[in-house]
Order: sequence, then structure tokens, then C-alpha cells
Amino acid sequence: MKFGGTSVADVERLRRVAETVSKAVAAGDQVAVVLSAMAGTTNQLVEWTQAISKLHDAREYDVVVSSGEQVTIGLLAIALHEKGISARSWLGWQIPVRTDGVHGSARIEDIDGAEIIRRMELGEVAVVAGFQGVAATNRVTTLGRSGSDTTAVALAAALKADRCDIYTDVDGVYTADPRIVTAARKLDRITYEEMLEMASQGAKVLQTRSVELAMNHRVRVQVLSSFNNTPGTLVVDEDEIVEQAVVSGITYASDEAKVTLLHVSDRPGVAAAVFGPLAAANVNVDMIVQSASPDGSRTDITFTVTRGELPRVEAILAQHQAAIGFQEIISDGDVVKVSVIGVGMRSHAGVAQKMFAALAEKGINIHAISTSEIKISVLIGAEYTELAVRSLHSAYGLDAV
Amino acid sequence: MKFGGTSVADVERLRRVAETVSKAVAAGDQVAVVLSAMAGTTNQLVEWTQAISKLHDAREYDVVVSSGEQVTIGLLAIALHEKGISARSWLGWQIPVRTDGVHGSARIEDIDGAEIIRRMELGEVAVVAGFQGVAATNRVTTLGRSGSDTTAVALAAALKADRCDIYTDVDGVYTADPRIVTAARKLDRITYEEMLEMASQGAKVLQTRSVELAMNHRVRVQVLSSFNNTPGTLVVDEDEIVEQAVVSGITYASDEAKVTLLHVSDRPGVAAAVFGPLAAANVNVDMIVQSASPDGSRTDITFTVTRGELPRVEAILAQHQAAIGFQEIISDGDVVKVSVIGVGMRSHAGVAQKMFAALAEKGINIHAISTSEIKISVLIGAEYTELAVRSLHSAYGLDAV
Repeated sequence: MKFGGTSVADVERLRRVAETVSKAVAAGDQVAVVLSAMAGTTNQLVEWTQAISKLHDAREYDVVVSSGEQVTIGLLAIALHEKGISARSWLGWQIPVRTDGVHGSARIEDIDGAEIIRRMELGEVAVVAGFQGVAATNRVTTLGRSGSDTTAVALAAALKADRCDIYTDVDGVYTADPRIVTAARKLDRITYEEMLEMASQGAKVLQTRSVELAMNHRVRVQVLSSFNNTPGTLVVDEDEIVEQAVVSGITYASDEAKVTLLHVSDRPGVAAAVFGPLAAANVNVDMIVQSASPDGSRTDITFTVTRGELPRVEAILAQHQAAIGFQEIISDGDVVKVSVIGVGMRSHAGVAQKMFAALAEKGINIHAISTSEIKISVLIGAEYTELAVRSLHSAYGLDAV
Repeated sequence: MKFGGTSVADVERLRRVAETVSKAVAAGDQVAVVLSAMAGTTNQLVEWTQAISKLHDAREYDVVVSSGEQVTIGLLAIALHEKGISARSWLGWQIPVRTDGVHGSARIEDIDGAEIIRRMELGEVAVVAGFQGVAATNRVTTLGRSGSDTTAVALAAALKADRCDIYTDVDGVYTADPRIVTAARKLDRITYEEMLEMASQGAKVLQTRSVELAMNHRVRVQVLSSFNNTPGTLVVDEDEIVEQAVVSGITYASDEAKVTLLHVSDRPGVAAAVFGPLAAANVNVDMIVQSASPDGSRTDITFTVTRGELPRVEAILAQHQAAIGFQEIISDGDVVKVSVIGVGMRSHAGVAQKMFAALAEKGINIHAISTSEIKISVLIGAEYTELAVRSLHSAYGLDAV
């Protein structure tokens, strides 16, 4: 069971977490709990390290920012004792959670679950600090953004857990953002592959990295709410889902920006000339469209990047204008990427066609398209976001009846 | 160099600490720094553990309350790097600082200074978390009140340091409390024995426990201010002080209470009957005076306890009234213990006489007296505190000229 920062934000909420854990224990489950720091704590700690020095040593950064989880695990262990439940807290180095030495965004290499399993069998609940580990140098490491989810999944794998329950402030994975699509339905089950696409295409519920880890170790993950008692969404292997829908969900990502280079000379190697300098600067380019001029001598190249990267991208391209040989850069931050995701696509034809037809019917112009085996994404004007998501949700028969 | 909570209360003060350390490094010193948590942090953490459960597991309490030092050591290491100084943080378990398993008030058993010494010789500053250690069980322990001073002295012993500088909000040890005696002088040097008596007789500057540790390991301790650059007071071995004053200081302790049992039957074993139950309840009894009645059949017994203990003491005595056989309890919280301290007393006669004469001259009545080899204490009415301390300060020739 993993609880995030808002679920452990104060003494009162920690008591509620203890209540949730105690119900699982009463039901006969052997439980390990992974906690984040209290909401806001880690941001405060990060702020202090930055206030002292912009260029701080990542090893010392890790010492500072990993202190928040130490507080919540100790307090939860006490709250569990108060309920008569045997429990003990575990810091990363005590288990140990061994990681590589990439401080600030370390990867878990190994978790030794032996002692925790031994104690679980004696009825003790393990309360584990998320987000932290220890490097071969014996120094504290942190796992980066959403590191506690990663700890939970990795620990579940190490303990050969039946399930890894990720408690969040939403009660599961939906067919679309319920704030936009009132007819959105909570999914009972979703495959790892779909969850991975959803996470990378804008759904915020789980981080890509923890889903990857769950998929690699076949950890059954449940996303559910810490504020109510309803079952959540189970993220599982494809063969655990008997009747697979063609499309499982519609996502949108608003932090996109479109860049168009006008009148690029259409010669071999021009794509390398454009994208080489961007790759060298670690810019992640997503969709790419190239449209040739009628006479074939000139072409326009359009691609998308994260909106925050736009100023940097424009600067890099301007610097390489002569080498690339384009006339003008046009950029547009007012775009959104809408994606249709479903493993059923593999075996069904006409999924893309249905998407294009539904958008055309609403008069929505498509700037770019990209696809994977289980996903089709289109880039459209940001003002069409809600209309597009709702239309697609209906077109694929996802609306709740 | 040890810095307390007010010296590391925010980013700005941590920068000042880094400045102080950098001066020592520039002067060619090899430096280890011991830090407390930011002022207020540990109290907040203690409060949370108590809010969840009054009867919490001390092992989990230690996990929670030891997190504050982790923040300050990481931040100071970063602040030192910013000044171009090589530095790394050390948590208790990383050194390790081995303690016994008495969670909440553990005692240091051993500090392995080898790696820190090796790195010091390469020019690296060690930034060490005070207050914390690790038990043989591999669990985090804390050292109790003023634990960071204890860490500093123990680390200085392990590193065979030339000196242990304790930075505080006062600039040294004074012949008397300067808030009461404007003519009080800062002492250049004081012996361990005197410092120990001063600490236990009301001077707040160092805790008894860290002075004991310094004395046992012959660590030269300097008490000095983190807010100015003047030398402080050196606490050293007696033979380091060439010309020893007869009296080094006058202290007062206001948290005393006087208890008198009237008309106790004067028989063998009556003292045991009075003090046995108090000792069993862990009450610390300080001064004791017994005055026999003229016919020798009845006696009054007067003693002092900490004022906060008074209600408990009265309850215990009332409960044992029949067994002890006294007529009445009279208690008085409005008293103060004034002490005259100096190793020179051992070789000088008349020190006590001078004290009694000085108090008599001002019309101050003495309720009780207790003495040690290097200390004379008297119990007087609280309203005479300032008068007594000032008169004694003059009588022993301590006033600044």
C-alpha cells in the first residue's frame, strides 16, 4: 500500500492511513506500506538547497530532500501501534534499497526483502520510506519525481506481493479526464501497455517509470482513492483481461508546442541537420511532419516539443539557420495533443479512420499525426481540446450509459 | 565546531556558519562540524509524535526526531561547497556513531573516526549530524537533551581534536549571570570540575553530560559565541590553569522547592523511611537538614527537590505519613539555591565563612547548606537572589575592575 503526500499531510490524515492499513490487516493481509513525505515538505527542502546554491552537489541534495519520509514513516508506525498493530519503520539504508549512484534520480538495483518477509510472517507491518535508497558508497540517494511510486512497485516485486495498491487523490484510471468528459467511466482493468501510453500521453495518475517497472516485474498495480473505499483500477497483464475494448481511453497533453521551419531545401540529410543539434541539446522531439512543395525543391518541416523548451529550441535553430538552410521559423504554443489508446487496435482495422472522421465532422483541423501499435495521436488547436476529447469519447462508444 | 539550533535556523545563518568554518579552514585547521536541527524543528517533531500517541515506541520517536539534523548538515555541506571548500555530510549510521539501545536517551559507545580523519587529511570538512547514532540493532537512536553537544565532544575525542568549540548564543562562561551582575567577568579558562558544578548548579551554558564526557576524555572545550569573533571560555584540565582563583563563579538555581516535615519521631531509620519512597519514585533530593528538638524525641527534616516535582513529593509523603510518623508537611517553592564554586577551595580555608558572613551582613537567612569539595551551596528566600549573588560576587573579589 502506497500513500502519497496529501494522504499523510498531517497527524489526522496519518491516523486515517493507519485505519486503512488496519482494515487490510484485519482482513488477513500481510502488508508493507510505502509513504511519501508530508505534502509540501519536499518542495520546501528543495527550495532551501536552491536558495543556498543553484549548483549544489546532488549527494548533499539527496541528504536534505530524503528527510521528509523519515518523519512520516515513524509517525505512521506510532499510529499503527496505537491501534494495537505490530509495525516498524524502515529507512532505505536499513532494508537496504540498493540503487545506482546517480544522485537525485537514482535507479533501484536491488531490494533485499528477506527480513521484511520474515517479520511479515510474524504479523508485523513494514512501514517503508519511499523515494530513497542507498548507493554502493553508503550514501543516501533519491529516486527523482514520483519516486515513492517506484519504491512501492519495486518493493512489491521484491516481496512477491499479490498486489501493489497506489492510493491517490483520484479513485482510478478513467476513459478520459472526468473534468472534461462527464460521461467518462472508471476502468476496472487496464493493461500495462495502455497505462504506459496513458501516462506518457498526459494522464497524471501514474508515472511512466513506475508503470514500466510494474510491467517488467509483472506487479499487479491497483490505483485507488485514499478518501473512499471503492475499488480502483487494476493495471495488469493483457491476458488477465478477458474482453478487451478496442479503445480504452482518450488523453490530452497541453504542454505541447509546434515548430514549423518554412522553405527548407529538400535535400538528403536535411532532417539530420534539423534534429541533430536538438538531440545534442537533449531536446525531446515528438511528432514530425514533412510536407514537400509541388516542385519538390523546397519543403516545410513541422514538429512538436514540450512547451517549456520552446525558447531554447528557437535559439538553437536560429543558431543553425545557415547550416540547415530554412527561410523562417513559425512556432505555436497554442496546440494540444489528443490521443486514442487501446491494445485492441492491434487486431481491429479502421480505428484511425474513425478518429479522423469524428474530428472532421466537428471541423477540427489536424496539424500532425503520430501513431504507435496501440495509440494514435493528433495535434490540434488548443481551443478544440474539450470538443475533440468529448467527440472521440462518444465515437468509440466509451460514454457511460 | 558545534553549532546549535539558533545558529542554523535558516539559510542566511547557515551561510554565516559556512563563513566561520571557512575562516578556520583558511587558518590551516582540519575541521569537523557538528550541527543541531534548525531551531524549533525538533520541538515540532516531538509534538507530532505526542499528538499521535502519548505512549509511543521510543524507536519510532527516534526515527522522527532525528530527521532535523539531516536537513542542516546537507545544507551546510552545500554552503561550504559554494565557498569552494571540500565538505561532506555524515549521518550517525554512516560514521557510525555507535550507541547503546536506550532509545530517546542513548549513550555513545564508540565513534569510528578513521574515515573522517583520512578525508580531513585530504582537506575535506566533515559535517556531522548531532544528537543521533545507531544501535547494534541497526536502528536510529537519539541522545536526548543537548545531544548535539555530546556528539561534538565525543567526536572530538574520537578524532583526537586539539579543541572542541561549542558555538552558542553567549560568548563564554561568566563569573556570574551577567543579567544580574553587571560586574560579571568572562572567564578565560575554567576547569572541568568547576564547569561540571556550574552546569549542575544552574549555569545553562553547557549540559552536565557533555562536560563529564569532556573531562573523561580530556577534550579541551571552548564555549564561544556564533555571533561575534571574540575568544570564549576554555574548559580544561586543572593543570592547564597556572594561577587558580579560589572562587571562579557564583551560580543560582531557581527551580528549587523546600519541603519540611514537622515533628518526625527521632528514631534510627527515620531518614530511610522518608527518603526511601522518594528514591523509589525517582525523585532527586538535593540538600537535607535535620534539626533535633531539645529533648531529642522529635526532629524536623528539611530537604529540597526540583520545583516541578513538588506536587508528586507531597503526594508520596502524605501516602507514607503513618509509616514515617510526622505531624505536618510544610513546603515552600519560593526559594533559590546560590552556590560558590572554585577548585581553589580545596587548598584555602575560610571560603565558607566568607560566604556566611557576606549573607549575614545583608540580613539574608540561610535555610539549608550543602557542600562538595569545590562548592558551597545555600538555600535562601527567592527575593534575595540578586542581592545574594551580587554580594558574593563582590565578597570573593570577582567584580571586573
